[in-house]
Amino acid sequence: MPQTPPTRFAYLGPEGTFAEAALGSAVAPGEGVRQPAASVPAALAAVRAGEVDAALVPMENSVEGSVPATMDGLADGDPLLITREVFLPVSFVLAARPGTRPEDVRDVVSHPHALAQTARTVAERLPGVPALPASSTAAAARAVADGEHDAAVCAPIAAQRYGLVPLAEDVADHPGAVTRFVLVSRPGQLPAPTGEDKTSLVVVVTDRTGALLDVLREFAVRGISLTRIESRPTRDRLWVYSFSLDCEGHVAEARVGEALAALHRVCEDVRFLGSYPRADGRTSRPVPDEAADAAFADAQEWVTRLRAGRV
Amino acid sequence: MPQTPPTRFAYLGPEGTFAEAALGSAVAPGEGVRQPAASVPAALAAVRAGEVDAALVPMENSVEGSVPATMDGLADGDPLLITREVFLPVSFVLAARPGTRPEDVRDVVSHPHALAQTARTVAERLPGVPALPASSTAAAARAVADGEHDAAVCAPIAAQRYGLVPLAEDVADHPGAVTRFVLVSRPGQLPAPTGEDKTSLVVVVTDRTGALLDVLREFAVRGISLTRIESRPTRDRLWVYSFSLDCEGHVAEARVGEALAALHRVCEDVRFLGSYPRADGRTSRPVPDEAADAAFADAQEWVTRLRAGRV
Amino acid sequence: MPQTPPTRFAYLGPEGTFAEAALGSAVAPGEGVRQPAASVPAALAAVRAGEVDAALVPMENSVEGSVPATMDGLADGDPLLITREVFLPVSFVLAARPGTRPEDVRDVVSHPHALAQTARTVAERLPGVPALPASSTAAAARAVADGEHDAAVCAPIAAQRYGLVPLAEDVADHPGAVTRFVLVSRPGQLPAPTGEDKTSLVVVVTDRTGALLDVLREFAVRGISLTRIESRPTRDRLWVYSFSLDCEGHVAEARVGEALAALHRVCEDVRFLGSYPRADGRTSRPVPDEAADAAFADAQEWVTRLRAGRV
Amino acid sequence: MPQTPPTRFAYLGPEGTFAEAALGSAVAPGEGVRQPAASVPAALAAVRAGEVDAALVPMENSVEGSVPATMDGLADGDPLLITREVFLPVSFVLAARPGTRPEDVRDVVSHPHALAQTARTVAERLPGVPALPASSTAAAARAVADGEHDAAVCAPIAAQRYGLVPLAEDVADHPGAVTRFVLVSRPGQLPAPTGEDKTSLVVVVTDRTGALLDVLREFAVRGISLTRIESRPTRDRLWVYSFSLDCEGHVAEARVGEALAALHRVCEDVRFLGSYPRADGRTSRPVPDEAADAAFADAQEWVTRLRAGRV
Repeated sequence: MPQTPPTRFAYLGPEGTFAEAALGSAVAPGEGVRQPAASVPAALAAVRAGEVDAALVPMENSVEGSVPATMDGLADGDPLLITREVFLPVSFVLAARPGTRPEDVRDVVSHPHALAQTARTVAERLPGVPALPASSTAAAARAVADGEHDAAVCAPIAAQRYGLVPLAEDVADHPGAVTRFVLVSRPGQLPAPTGEDKTSLVVVVTDRTGALLDVLREFAVRGISLTRIESRPTRDRLWVYSFSLDCEGHVAEARVGEALAALHRVCEDVRFLGSYPRADGRTSRPVPDEAADAAFADAQEWVTRLRAGRV
Repeated sequence: MPQTPPTRFAYLGPEGTFAEAALGSAVAPGEGVRQPAASVPAALAAVRAGEVDAALVPMENSVEGSVPATMDGLADGDPLLITREVFLPVSFVLAARPGTRPEDVRDVVSHPHALAQTARTVAERLPGVPALPASSTAAAARAVADGEHDAAVCAPIAAQRYGLVPLAEDVADHPGAVTRFVLVSRPGQLPAPTGEDKTSLVVVVTDRTGALLDVLREFAVRGISLTRIESRPTRDRLWVYSFSLDCEGHVAEARVGEALAALHRVCEDVRFLGSYPRADGRTSRPVPDEAADAAFADAQEWVTRLRAGRV
Repeated sequence: MPQTPPTRFAYLGPEGTFAEAALGSAVAPGEGVRQPAASVPAALAAVRAGEVDAALVPMENSVEGSVPATMDGLADGDPLLITREVFLPVSFVLAARPGTRPEDVRDVVSHPHALAQTARTVAERLPGVPALPASSTAAAARAVADGEHDAAVCAPIAAQRYGLVPLAEDVADHPGAVTRFVLVSRPGQLPAPTGEDKTSLVVVVTDRTGALLDVLREFAVRGISLTRIESRPTRDRLWVYSFSLDCEGHVAEARVGEALAALHRVCEDVRFLGSYPRADGRTSRPVPDEAADAAFADAQEWVTRLRAGRV
Repeated sequence: MPQTPPTRFAYLGPEGTFAEAALGSAVAPGEGVRQPAASVPAALAAVRAGEVDAALVPMENSVEGSVPATMDGLADGDPLLITREVFLPVSFVLAARPGTRPEDVRDVVSHPHALAQTARTVAERLPGVPALPASSTAAAARAVADGEHDAAVCAPIAAQRYGLVPLAEDVADHPGAVTRFVLVSRPGQLPAPTGEDKTSLVVVVTDRTGALLDVLREFAVRGISLTRIESRPTRDRLWVYSFSLDCEGHVAEARVGEALAALHRVCEDVRFLGSYPRADGRTSRPVPDEAADAAFADAQEWVTRLRAGRV
């Protein structure tokens, strides 16, 4: 199943969002066609419908969009695969039209989340100036460019795209925030293992004391570390729980393959969301010797010999 | 440490939010003074500063506010205790000034999250009408009352408070959403056990394969079910992970007390966030006989006898 | 590797022991040649040297021979395979030459273990008669037949073989004892799975707290019950432990094969001692659906699909 | 419950056994009265009846007596406590009356186990000389002293006691064997913790896959290593298993006390057989900080504070 690289991309729009910036960091400038989507579900639907080859959507910590929308959007519906993760520092600028002086600013506009994350710093820079909501940080930048408002809290890419200039940079009250985005495609050839990979899953278990413990045990006995776990509410099925989790390693590795096979046996449901290079700047736990592919191969060969009576 | 019931309450404002509605469902109408807070951190700060006795803030699934803000706000800073949880169905109405007919509506306004959750239904009711952002659903209702816009997507309580009437009720595209709020106080007497309780914790572990497994094992060996778990990123400390979790039971129970004591021994850090009556409408797993207080008391008495040589 | 059935058998001798009786219950009367061995090591050596095809030796609870000798004899040296287990009730008779009346008996002779297990009953039947040691119950019977002594405590087969008649039957003080014997061969085709099988292993682990726990976990996660476990001392290697254990199931089953492969990866050493039909009269725990061969095959197929990107 | 030191001792007899030698290594020469018992059950019965204060019986690897007899004798009947363990090298001598030359020896006599363990060496020293059974190694020495036989394989203490002299020393085929004896008393004050202790238990569990795993987990989660485990057959109760086990640590330690309390809650039955100084010459695993008494005390204090609302 050879797969040509994606050439048509959707991202959580509008233009000028952090998602567009993240896509820019993941795909070379001249590569492919990029189109904004109105929402995470819309972006995922475009992939499923074949209108685009891949979509870049926020998974965690986003200030623009909805993490649950991504998690639920991947967990339900036709299967999709994460082929890449992208981490983008959340860097807000306070942007205005060229020539605007701070004392000229009568209002500042942005998505409510962005306003919340920059409230103190903006109040220091623009004391007494009212803050107004916009539907996205990019929409705020465009509204300023259009002359509807005087200043916007937005991503640097949005300021640039709409011809604004920064009145102040790095205006987040708590610097260092990072958003994790994922690039999602229809099922196809998986990214090759790199030695520094992650695998994402949604696991559904019938509730009993220790059900989650049993799930984690399947990773631990095979020397696999988890990097994220989150219980997801299941509204409709009493005593059934769903977990969204990421672990280290690639399904092509024996340890990960066997762990997933075990979950497939013991869980109500397991959905594989992909194996892809880790991009969070952290180093994976070294694979213990006893969990390396060579150890699995040796062990399998040994059992094969046993079964043939050659002990 | 007797504690008088709280009489001054903060809630995530402004007036007319779901948080105010949740507070209304938790505290009798004539009871106490209530004041909106501009943000979750502001609400928690008001409790810590002693300006109010308790704050009602969203914990999960909110459409109004930020769950991470609550989790991080409880995990850091001076200790606070959850004394109650409140679940509120997320019920949106499409509200307008009395006398407004659907065909009169030229724009609809709300918080972007609320617009996203009602987009399809609103588009059916008001085809072609543009949707505009507001900083909260309550602010949207007020803007309609003030004549700035024609219709708002908001909570029923906001429509009522601002004298609006519903053009349509239950306009969520996916009905059944519920928000979980928690009532938070300064440390003091815990709510008495009811037999249907939850305990909330933040647990920090040094990373190694199986660290989380070891945490969960302390619950499982004592017959305690988890109802929620979420890994929380720790930006600064490499290989250190933080987990926010809720389990069944009350710290006054022997099984829960011993499990917490075990975590205190084996984890980097454990923060206790409270034991309080469960209000999610679910029934707790029956406490196994061997994990009941009587079994712990018998066992302790037996060991005391052993130590005295009376076997 | 087709294997002809064994036709030359050794058993823990001398003639007339319980081991010979056990062999008789395992192999049809006219089948094969049988020869006593002087000791368990001698019996195992005869198999290893190819002098016989199989040896029947006691494994547990024997009154005739040494269990450690069997366990250590199988754990060390060239590999051997258990192909069968045989349980034999330990039934002692008090035997004398024909015509002997109880009041004629001036001494009673047997192996010290047999004397110990029948002391009270024999004292009731033959008050005041001295008990003398013999090197085996069979040797005791022969000595009575030779006229050296008047009565022997021995197996019914020994009485019969040496022409003695019972003065009393079932003279064990605690009836119900059973000895477990195993039939041991050189490596070759394993007995076919029957659905009621056992697998025997020797597992060596480097000591740390929880090392044994990790071993047992590999069985538990795959729904396999243990039927016996015994720590074996290792004199020479500090902090290294050895365990002799039997579990339910056959290595041909996927669950057992995968568990053994896991032990092969994580343990210092694993020696496979065979998979063979269980004969203890107990019913195996039903194989859980998620541990059945079909579940393993489904899971493997699923992972294979995942790896090919067909999710 | 102050307890005077034992002054009357039973040991597995007759005089001259390894058990008497072990008692001699445990109790100072002039201390107390010592009497042989005919069997392990007899020795234990003498303690239970108050005829002696303590009994020294073999527990493991004995060449003289029956380990199952000790294990079962401690597991059933009125409770007894192990207050000490004694390890004795199994050192056989080939002994004869003074003046006997090797070429004079026409027969050699001993307990069958001792004959088995020295067969090769004795055959080298006394080629062609027949080996005859005795009821104990001590009885063999006495028979040689009485002139009934010419040479005995026995403990050095037996040779000395019966006035024999060694024809050869250290005649075991595999040198290095050690027997573990235990000194058993009626319940009373436990030996004080020394920092290098063992605790012995008999644990009964209802069978299910993983039942033993759950037992071991209670030790592992509290940083306690096992030093011995053995499944014991239960003849009468289907699906019920019994385990005899030793762990490191003393019941006076918090970690051990809590582990035992946990077993008391979750197991069918737990019998405490004592906490006593370890004497096997091995060093215990260091107690992890999180399992030290101080950590348990801190944790308990913390939970007490939580319950009072002082977080």
